[in-house]
Amino acid sequence: MSLDLLDTPAAIIDVPRMDHNIALMQQHMRTLGVHFRPHVKTTKCVEVVRAQIAAGAKGITVSTLKEAEAFFAAGVVDILYAVGIDPSKLKRAMALKQKGCDLKLVVDNPAAALAVGEFVREQGVAFEVWIEVDTDGHRSGITPEEESLLEVGRILRDADVKIGGVMTHAGSSYELNTPDALEALAEQERAGCVRAAQRLRDIGLACEGVSVGSTPTALAARHLEGVTEVRAGVYVLFDLVMRNVGVCRFDDIALSVLTTVIGHQADKGWAILDAGWMAMSRDRGTSKQDRDFGYGQPCTLDGTPIAGYLLSGANQEHGILSPIDIDDGSTGSAAVSDTVDIRDRFPIGTKLRILPNHACATGAQFPEYHALDAEGELTVWSRFHGW
Amino acid sequence: MSLDLLDTPAAIIDVPRMDHNIALMQQHMRTLGVHFRPHVKTTKCVEVVRAQIAAGAKGITVSTLKEAEAFFAAGVVDILYAVGIDPSKLKRAMALKQKGCDLKLVVDNPAAALAVGEFVREQGVAFEVWIEVDTDGHRSGITPEEESLLEVGRILRDADVKIGGVMTHAGSSYELNTPDALEALAEQERAGCVRAAQRLRDIGLACEGVSVGSTPTALAARHLEGVTEVRAGVYVLFDLVMRNVGVCRFDDIALSVLTTVIGHQADKGWAILDAGWMAMSRDRGTSKQDRDFGYGQPCTLDGTPIAGYLLSGANQEHGILSPIDIDDGSTGSAAVSDTVDIRDRFPIGTKLRILPNHACATGAQFPEYHALDAEGELTVWSRFHGW
Repeated sequence: MSLDLLDTPAAIIDVPRMDHNIALMQQHMRTLGVHFRPHVKTTKCVEVVRAQIAAGAKGITVSTLKEAEAFFAAGVVDILYAVGIDPSKLKRAMALKQKGCDLKLVVDNPAAALAVGEFVREQGVAFEVWIEVDTDGHRSGITPEEESLLEVGRILRDADVKIGGVMTHAGSSYELNTPDALEALAEQERAGCVRAAQRLRDIGLACEGVSVGSTPTALAARHLEGVTEVRAGVYVLFDLVMRNVGVCRFDDIALSVLTTVIGHQADKGWAILDAGWMAMSRDRGTSKQDRDFGYGQPCTLDGTPIAGYLLSGANQEHGILSPIDIDDGSTGSAAVSDTVDIRDRFPIGTKLRILPNHACATGAQFPEYHALDAEGELTVWSRFHGW
Repeated sequence: MSLDLLDTPAAIIDVPRMDHNIALMQQHMRTLGVHFRPHVKTTKCVEVVRAQIAAGAKGITVSTLKEAEAFFAAGVVDILYAVGIDPSKLKRAMALKQKGCDLKLVVDNPAAALAVGEFVREQGVAFEVWIEVDTDGHRSGITPEEESLLEVGRILRDADVKIGGVMTHAGSSYELNTPDALEALAEQERAGCVRAAQRLRDIGLACEGVSVGSTPTALAARHLEGVTEVRAGVYVLFDLVMRNVGVCRFDDIALSVLTTVIGHQADKGWAILDAGWMAMSRDRGTSKQDRDFGYGQPCTLDGTPIAGYLLSGANQEHGILSPIDIDDGSTGSAAVSDTVDIRDRFPIGTKLRILPNHACATGAQFPEYHALDAEGELTVWSRFHGW
């Protein structure tokens, strides 16, 4: 099966680009002297994770127990479940531990630590718990200087629960777009997490692991003193948000949605595509960035961005491709002329590939990827769905 | 299994509310004297569609061939595929026809009509084609007075393709919020589609069917003279966007996402939930409406909206529940006091239900619904995914 014969819409992974992204990140981690634990929530795909592990990744990060179960079944043992544990999920987590999965849980508050402690006492399961640290005010975690950091540590120690380490995620890096700002946030993330570990050690608690990461800070970090491992997810495919953040180029984006032109509104300059928001997702992550790509950047079938056009709108199964008036130079050519008839430019049946705003969200709309290798051959790679 | 023991996040359908929504729409269609052909893209769920058909629906509308295949396998024969046909999908559509499915295709341009005609000539398959009409400039279709409407009709006739009728969808109704504006758009939708049918008939073409609809216009229509059938999708579950449009109340919304409190940022007044955008979807349909619900309206476990709070932010598997400062009176109580400690108000482990912005988008994030009946019993209803 070749690309032009594939049913549309379809999610295409450009395997050479993906391999390049994986190699680049792994090399950067080697240079920094830390382990790398990729976050597999981006793809939820066994073939992708095998490529990450083959390149040198040590363990994986997951966002759901379903991912943990599926990847353990596929042979991955060392798994960090990086969302604060809901006590009612402990039984399901225990089942994984009992099968031999080295599942690590995360807590960021005394109530959850107490619940884990009580569960461990009742069930005798040897959970390893990591404490989530908040280094940028983005979401979850305990700030390094907070008293409750030590309180959580003591609760776990008193319940004989192994503390694996501390972990943080500087998710606010997605809001930045200069190398200096990214490097500064990477240092803030590192320093805050190392400081939290030190405070726990200062009261006599074991805290071996220091885990940091987001794709932008991982790539921007210059040194990671005191850090033992880095986590990142979207780097494996990249997307338009990451392009705007400044950590990849168009040519690094390994995910695209294959689509077909099914209609036009010539007066408005619209081509109607069979990729709407069900295919692209509703993610509009570039809407607050310097360059807004609408629902995505159209490319030719060979993956070359088409200057002057974007996916300006989306209904469930209809996408609207339209010209943009202003040329910002990024795609290297002039704005679309008013004299172009959209029906001639993109006739019915034209196949295009759309680069997505957010690879994690777009991938989740599809039951499978079509992996496109260097020879143009396609292979189906399935992905998980649900919890 | 009861609601409080269910793994979270989970998509809950309140069956009595759904049944009420189905009955109300069907009764309205009976009063207007038209057939009703529900759009099943909202739920992609056999159990829901069976309830719609049991209530009197005649045929269904689908947005993908996968839906057509799945519902035909489940016994539904009369199916309108309401997205302009991509010529490369004709082979797949033919396979359904040959199995006995009364599949109706849609075109809105001469090129697609020619492609269908050529395919019919080559393959001898008796496709029935409907012509899509644009009555509100929203998306696809040919405006009623355009010359290409007749051109498409002639192309189909000359190729001996049966013209089933004309169909339109006034999707711009989602942007309105007064009964008068909705009624006016419903009349515009009706009149435009009837006019298009008349123009085709005036040149001697058969055009029996006149199909209109969107949930807001279907509910707002006072008379549908000349119309043979109405299509609507989201009415079956409703959502916050529809509540803002003014065609349902909170108490009619039959879809919610069950979630658990897993953390807090007390200084910010945040509770962290295990329902992020992967569960709610990235749909922010209420962001441009009079009342912005963020990523959703929190409710207690019994489905009662919790005044003064909303899902203000979402990462992939983390939702941020926070107080809103302004009380608009809609949920009937005062704004949240600054003195409330979020950890006391929503302790770790608290179960909540979140009403979504857009039922079609939120449902698509889940492999199955949990249907909650009047007795509080839960049944798993699976749904399709992909194309």
